[in-house]
Amino acid sequence: MDVGVIGLGRMGQGMAASLIRAGHTVRVWNRSPDAAKAVAGAKPVASAAEAFRGDAAITMLADDAALRGVIVEGGLLDSPERPGLHLGMSTISVSLAAELAALHERAGVPYVAAPVFGRPDVAEKGALNIVAAGAAAAIDRAAPLLDAMGTRTWRFGDEPQRANAVKLAGNFMLVSAIEAMGEAAAFAEGHGVAGGELLDLLTNTLFASPVYKGYGASIAADRYEPPGFNLRLGAKDVRLALAAAEAVGVPMPFASVLRDNLIEAMAHGDGEKDLAALARVAARRSGRG
Amino acid sequence: MDVGVIGLGRMGQGMAASLIRAGHTVRVWNRSPDAAKAVAGAKPVASAAEAFRGDAAITMLADDAALRGVIVEGGLLDSPERPGLHLGMSTISVSLAAELAALHERAGVPYVAAPVFGRPDVAEKGALNIVAAGAAAAIDRAAPLLDAMGTRTWRFGDEPQRANAVKLAGNFMLVSAIEAMGEAAAFAEGHGVAGGELLDLLTNTLFASPVYKGYGASIAADRYEPPGFNLRLGAKDVRLALAAAEAVGVPMPFASVLRDNLIEAMAHGDGEKDLAALARVAARRSGRG
Amino acid sequence: MDVGVIGLGRMGQGMAASLIRAGHTVRVWNRSPDAAKAVAGAKPVASAAEAFRGDAAITMLADDAALRGVIVEGGLLDSPERPGLHLGMSTISVSLAAELAALHERAGVPYVAAPVFGRPDVAEKGALNIVAAGAAAAIDRAAPLLDAMGTRTWRFGDEPQRANAVKLAGNFMLVSAIEAMGEAAAFAEGHGVAGGELLDLLTNTLFASPVYKGYGASIAADRYEPPGFNLRLGAKDVRLALAAAEAVGVPMPFASVLRDNLIEAMAHGDGEKDLAALARVAARRSGRG
Amino acid sequence: MDVGVIGLGRMGQGMAASLIRAGHTVRVWNRSPDAAKAVAGAKPVASAAEAFRGDAAITMLADDAALRGVIVEGGLLDSPERPGLHLGMSTISVSLAAELAALHERAGVPYVAAPVFGRPDVAEKGALNIVAAGAAAAIDRAAPLLDAMGTRTWRFGDEPQRANAVKLAGNFMLVSAIEAMGEAAAFAEGHGVAGGELLDLLTNTLFASPVYKGYGASIAADRYEPPGFNLRLGAKDVRLALAAAEAVGVPMPFASVLRDNLIEAMAHGDGEKDLAALARVAARRSGRG
Repeated sequence: MDVGVIGLGRMGQGMAASLIRAGHTVRVWNRSPDAAKAVAGAKPVASAAEAFRGDAAITMLADDAALRGVIVEGGLLDSPERPGLHLGMSTISVSLAAELAALHERAGVPYVAAPVFGRPDVAEKGALNIVAAGAAAAIDRAAPLLDAMGTRTWRFGDEPQRANAVKLAGNFMLVSAIEAMGEAAAFAEGHGVAGGELLDLLTNTLFASPVYKGYGASIAADRYEPPGFNLRLGAKDVRLALAAAEAVGVPMPFASVLRDNLIEAMAHGDGEKDLAALARVAARRSGRG
Repeated sequence: MDVGVIGLGRMGQGMAASLIRAGHTVRVWNRSPDAAKAVAGAKPVASAAEAFRGDAAITMLADDAALRGVIVEGGLLDSPERPGLHLGMSTISVSLAAELAALHERAGVPYVAAPVFGRPDVAEKGALNIVAAGAAAAIDRAAPLLDAMGTRTWRFGDEPQRANAVKLAGNFMLVSAIEAMGEAAAFAEGHGVAGGELLDLLTNTLFASPVYKGYGASIAADRYEPPGFNLRLGAKDVRLALAAAEAVGVPMPFASVLRDNLIEAMAHGDGEKDLAALARVAARRSGRG
Repeated sequence: MDVGVIGLGRMGQGMAASLIRAGHTVRVWNRSPDAAKAVAGAKPVASAAEAFRGDAAITMLADDAALRGVIVEGGLLDSPERPGLHLGMSTISVSLAAELAALHERAGVPYVAAPVFGRPDVAEKGALNIVAAGAAAAIDRAAPLLDAMGTRTWRFGDEPQRANAVKLAGNFMLVSAIEAMGEAAAFAEGHGVAGGELLDLLTNTLFASPVYKGYGASIAADRYEPPGFNLRLGAKDVRLALAAAEAVGVPMPFASVLRDNLIEAMAHGDGEKDLAALARVAARRSGRG
Repeated sequence: MDVGVIGLGRMGQGMAASLIRAGHTVRVWNRSPDAAKAVAGAKPVASAAEAFRGDAAITMLADDAALRGVIVEGGLLDSPERPGLHLGMSTISVSLAAELAALHERAGVPYVAAPVFGRPDVAEKGALNIVAAGAAAAIDRAAPLLDAMGTRTWRFGDEPQRANAVKLAGNFMLVSAIEAMGEAAAFAEGHGVAGGELLDLLTNTLFASPVYKGYGASIAADRYEPPGFNLRLGAKDVRLALAAAEAVGVPMPFASVLRDNLIEAMAHGDGEKDLAALARVAARRSGRG
């Protein structure tokens, strides 16, 4: 397929590479053009509008503001030449997703929300888990692209914003797992047990899953640089989850604790470290930080 | 080895059966004698003292009060005939564990704390994960028993109470995982996504570990009976973790949330349901319970 | 002075009445014109622009959106005839206050943020506590108006948004007081002590202050209608406080609990009841609601 | 009346002095005898048993352990000569109070629980607020003593432990007020407003009550020594409140936050400072501590 990719952070680059490897024709655009040159085999284009056309356009931007800037304020939905479908893969708010769904409907551009689970190295391998929602026909049409980027596409019906709710729920659980490990490690240290030894046991038995193993290893080593997933971005996702929860009347006390602790982490200079640095909050509060 | 097992709840029965299967000679004692008869191949004895002798004695009792009643108030450490070592496998407080360590030292009975991870069906198969702490020589001597009951023994040094701290840390993480799933499911439901579908995705990808799969399936099915692990016992373990954390100056805000929510669950009649029923709290608070 | 009042909810009406009583000439404007007619002695005008002129204009609107709509989107700062100063008395976000401060500076209109403490009956009597920040000369000039509306003006320097931060801090403390009373009452009831008797003691001794007496009486009587201050508006203020706290890196765990509990209250239909209905959450969670 | 006072900390000394001033004959006993000599006009006795007789005995001890040690383990209820009634004025757990009520009933000694609100200087003046529960006739008989020590006695029925529940509820609200001020002050500082200026406004208006003014002044001055009420004792009371709440199925999320933050305060060396030092936690967490 002939596809444009807008947004070439580490995730977007990996996804573009996977598409190329699968034989698709890939145009790329990024606000700072250097990133666009970094994707071998892709064709950098000079404007977002030139990427937002062809069989499909994919957006993978950092946050609501970036996506809103390019798509809504950039007027892409009013441009004469538009894509056969738009795969919105950024992690954004549920409310912006709903707004985009309505705008695309009005503009006649099929819109599929397709946020992903997986770090940059997983994107590079085309092994993401993709959460897709939107018109079934549009998702079907996007299958060759989704299959190139991910190992599996999980469908959540035809309202695009539901995929974004699922993504935020998953990230909330991920940050919760880190907090639980952080508190458990501080508790263990208080009793003379190295946090790393505790986590080695637990992440190889009851909690032998990718998230626990990955972040658990960082906590065990007390090493948070270079970041795989910046703490500040994790804090953003918790904020989006809380806002979306409030909108539908759901109290989330764990998310509230996460919010407070992530704020503390950023106030102590850990915003650009890996999200696992959240574990330092429990250590600091117990006087061992 | 010639071993006595004190405490034949569902866990104790499974452990005794595994010992017999491995060729050990097993005497068993339980406060209500019917349970003792339930273990094929074991020899019921008439008093705890008759079980607390031989090469080793194993205790697997419900809580601090039960263990204290049998060992300390029952005066077992003062009886003329005592075991070659005592394997304390109950989930108890760190403070009682430390007290028992001192009492055994004084009495000259080697004491190994060896709490376990695994439900009754895992105990039955001899596939527990065992957390052991105590004198290295004593643990070495207990190896044939530990190997019969578990797939692996994780050693945490020579202070017995550290094993109990590790056990409480693990159970805290387990209850945290349930709370996170409960909040995530309530959040998803609020956005029109079935909680079960959300958990199916997440427990097969990022969180593909035994704890998430097991409890996640209960939450997805909204089915909490019969209980595998009673909510009231989970609440007890969180209480023990909080007390042990306070003793060493560690704030645990997640554990505090768990405590509040478990109290709410019990106040609404879910104390004897499976621990996964904790997820109902988030649903109820959002008006969907 | 010749003053225009924009926004005639119950608070705005009381403030306009106080100004008239003090001899000021008062033009009034409200989105729905009926309210404007309700203020005896005031002159209803047909547009916000006709109110936003003269010696001073006062805005007392429900929230950020309403104020932004009238002032920023309504283009009032670009109109040819503008007031000698603008007293912004609404409870709004710190960030909007800062934005307005900058816009007024550019437009050359002195801007004083002057949110208030006090319910509608206090506004009616001209007995508010007013929190003012802005250029000292502008506050001095506004003194005759401030003195007409309040018993005392508390000055917080020359950055207008600081007054809004103070207002949000005060409302956070107010909602915290209600939550504390609600939990204490549920606790007492659990022990066979009527919540009302407990609060009668405490609000006449240690906590003998207006906030505790007023909201305590509602909780004691379990009566939340008619509302003095709608729970939904209290929830809005807690949300604004949390956002402003996050912006400057301050974790506020009490505010997080308030947020969760206010969401629960709204999810159970208490959004339009008096803020004191927050106390029902603690009762419900303990199974006595 | 002829009365014995057991326990001469700062509170007990002030109460004994008030009794003497009102013309009562006062025997005093304290574990460390120096304190007993400090009360002018009182007669030091050599044993708790010599104080636990006469028309009435008053106990004012530090905690459950001290009271249990003297009364239960000391066997005072079995001594041949016993008091006409026992006024238990210590701040103790609800469960110990219930246990004491039963023990006194069996021993035939009327027992009135009568914990107090007020700091040592208030005790010295005989101006305490006394919370009394027990048999009405016994409280009536104690009236001359209660009137000497307090400005008012608040009655809560005939089950002694209810008075202790009320006392714990009050102290919970007191610590909550400090936490709310601490968070509000940290929030204000983040926005460039001195915490002291914020609290000056609020504790003279909405929150013009003794508790807010007293602790607010400490926070404003950032001065926590010498302590009026030790943070460690406040933490004990929150712990007792949480235990009593759990016993009757009441979640108290504010109390849980207090518990976590008091643990943090003690972990950072503030246990022997004044309870107002709890406010330092919010400052520290925001990076300004």
